[in-house]
Amino acid sequence: MEFKFELLPGGVNYPKGFLAEGVFCDIKRIGTGKGSNKGKKLDLAVIFSEEEATTAGAFTTNQIKAAPVRLCLKRMANQSGRAIVVNSGNANACTGVKGTDNALAMARATAKELHINTEDVWVCSTGRIGVQLPMAHVRKGIHSACTQLGDSIAHATRAAEAILTSDNHTKQLAAQMDLDGCPARIGGMTKGAGMIAPGMSANGERPALHATMLCFLTTDLSIAPDCLQLALEKAVAQSFNRISIDGDMSTNDSVILMANGMAGNTRVTKPRGKVFELFQAALNELTRTLAKQMVCDGEGVSRCVNLHLQGARTPLDAEAAVRSVSNSELVKTSWCGGDPNWGRIMDALGYSTAKVDGDRVDIGYRESQGKRILYVLKNGVPTRTPLSAVRKITEQAEFDILIDLHLGKSSTVFYTADLTEAYVDFNKGE
Amino acid sequence: MEFKFELLPGGVNYPKGFLAEGVFCDIKRIGTGKGSNKGKKLDLAVIFSEEEATTAGAFTTNQIKAAPVRLCLKRMANQSGRAIVVNSGNANACTGVKGTDNALAMARATAKELHINTEDVWVCSTGRIGVQLPMAHVRKGIHSACTQLGDSIAHATRAAEAILTSDNHTKQLAAQMDLDGCPARIGGMTKGAGMIAPGMSANGERPALHATMLCFLTTDLSIAPDCLQLALEKAVAQSFNRISIDGDMSTNDSVILMANGMAGNTRVTKPRGKVFELFQAALNELTRTLAKQMVCDGEGVSRCVNLHLQGARTPLDAEAAVRSVSNSELVKTSWCGGDPNWGRIMDALGYSTAKVDGDRVDIGYRESQGKRILYVLKNGVPTRTPLSAVRKITEQAEFDILIDLHLGKSSTVFYTADLTEAYVDFNKGE
Repeated sequence: MEFKFELLPGGVNYPKGFLAEGVFCDIKRIGTGKGSNKGKKLDLAVIFSEEEATTAGAFTTNQIKAAPVRLCLKRMANQSGRAIVVNSGNANACTGVKGTDNALAMARATAKELHINTEDVWVCSTGRIGVQLPMAHVRKGIHSACTQLGDSIAHATRAAEAILTSDNHTKQLAAQMDLDGCPARIGGMTKGAGMIAPGMSANGERPALHATMLCFLTTDLSIAPDCLQLALEKAVAQSFNRISIDGDMSTNDSVILMANGMAGNTRVTKPRGKVFELFQAALNELTRTLAKQMVCDGEGVSRCVNLHLQGARTPLDAEAAVRSVSNSELVKTSWCGGDPNWGRIMDALGYSTAKVDGDRVDIGYRESQGKRILYVLKNGVPTRTPLSAVRKITEQAEFDILIDLHLGKSSTVFYTADLTEAYVDFNKGE
Repeated sequence: MEFKFELLPGGVNYPKGFLAEGVFCDIKRIGTGKGSNKGKKLDLAVIFSEEEATTAGAFTTNQIKAAPVRLCLKRMANQSGRAIVVNSGNANACTGVKGTDNALAMARATAKELHINTEDVWVCSTGRIGVQLPMAHVRKGIHSACTQLGDSIAHATRAAEAILTSDNHTKQLAAQMDLDGCPARIGGMTKGAGMIAPGMSANGERPALHATMLCFLTTDLSIAPDCLQLALEKAVAQSFNRISIDGDMSTNDSVILMANGMAGNTRVTKPRGKVFELFQAALNELTRTLAKQMVCDGEGVSRCVNLHLQGARTPLDAEAAVRSVSNSELVKTSWCGGDPNWGRIMDALGYSTAKVDGDRVDIGYRESQGKRILYVLKNGVPTRTPLSAVRKITEQAEFDILIDLHLGKSSTVFYTADLTEAYVDFNKGE
């Protein structure tokens, strides 16, 4: 028996029975009076499953939830879906009763076009907060997208383009699984760029952890709703909930995974066994890859940093420590300059809520994918490693930092990025 | 009977019996191999009291405490002082046993020069973390400063210069009190610029709240140690602990207040009554003024923002809400651009640990010192206030934002600043 998977190019319509399209309907300029429609950047995407799909989701734990997020949280009661409609350029957040009505109207319009139930349409939005959607444009966009759905990579790419805001390029990926002869597939696309520090849970309630980041995943695996939800939560916990670009958790973060069963495998009904484990492994690697791509494509990002922390007293301490380092403006600007300023890392560890003993901390640097660790601090005392050697690592576009608190057994990995003038320039302008 | 005070130009040697001096001894270049000694920026200051002074202090609650902070925390057992020695250019933090020895050596050298007890010398450092002090230079500097002490404003100004790191200008101020005919004085100087989000307590332990910021205060009032300490803690709570430039709490934050009793007033022995209240009022206004100056002189700061929050469920919620807004990179960059992007404020409120109900929040903008509030959000719904009108406020160098959560009776004020390209440029380079 052989159970294996591989990642390969592809998008949300790679699994059997899924179609997608992305179109331009001029949402941002009309809605906000900002930006231009030059180049007609695509701004509305639809994903459609030919069969009823079991659907799982994870959504922002921000207390201020956009109207489409609140709609999706209602959809979680049934975990059933046929389509997802997504617009960029407007977050439909802080938009009151009218915003709630508009999110529902998006679902209704999509359902009507596709001859499916409104309850089977999931809705997402990303863009500026506090502006009402230009619904006439949105309706036109939904009509265009629904009538042009297709299964080509070009269709998937247009959908992946349409969900972008300040991202530089599309992020999509597919996985092909071999379940002992039965092939099954996963597809996914994501967007990030700014307001990226996701902390998502299934019911939108804390206490999970902490962009708008959106991720849409599809699979033709046949799997029961509770197993699908569990797999998604595990995947999110080790991917999107492990990244930060600017520490700002969005009102709109959403990950939705649809499974339409068209691979024809024996239905997975327990969260264990070879098939479930392979699916979990593939989903983990696919989401982690997309999450890391999101960090590297973040607003103004020039360097990606992988924080590996161990020796924390508790898992919460590990989390607090990496987030404190990852959110420190001083640490992040030093990365921008390629400066191995470990003193700022110590400072950020020290003011985190994690227990830290300055006399025990080790800090080391390593090339991404590298083996050799250059320690700058051992048991709280600076080593003799020349900073010029460390600088050769920190001047690279991606590198690892290894921190050991030596206080316990909890560890974590966190994917983050530098803070650059380009980030400030971009965000002051909007 | 008349009890009144006024703020006026002056520094730490304004009160009777206090002398000061600031000198250049080339600490930064020698210690770090960075920077230059061109211009010979002053880098070591000594403050001296002719009489034994009751001394109060508040120090960083960062778990990583610089060697001089740990020394001062020991001094808190006696609350007695004759001198403070301060260097800039090197934080003497994360420097191990040698750093501890060097901090003590600074106290010893100062005591020897001034013929006082080592236990009466308080030590502070600010600058880069993880580098050993160039002690030969420090000793020369201590000798020069101690032999040139004086009571002129020029002496105070040199001392105020010597404690600066990336600050643009000195920050010093004095207060003259009239205690029913008996004059008494307060003097103070401070430095800030980066790594500014103080959270200080008297014993260096949490749970207070949350630069290196340093502030040295002197008074000739005669007052008992416990009363002096209480007055200082109250003053710090409404000034330095209410500011943030970049959200990074330093390893070195220190505020020290010496009271030498030379005003000749009847000694204050209870934390109440006209004299104590007047002193508290004067100390509060002086420290708040210095704290706000520190924010406006922060690294790369182009706009100062006064956050007024009310309606929080608890004081901790009020604190969490303003700190979340104040630390949001997206909020801070929008301020840089003069953009009234209240959606980002809502987002930051929503992911704070404070309880927030999006349907109840009011957000308004007001000119600094102004009376008219322009509301952009009422009960969670955008108002019809044109953003162009709000922009006239947010494009000013200082303005107020008023937030009402409508969930309780707790309120707070917090002084913060924007995040600019200049901040990134400055900090990536060091």
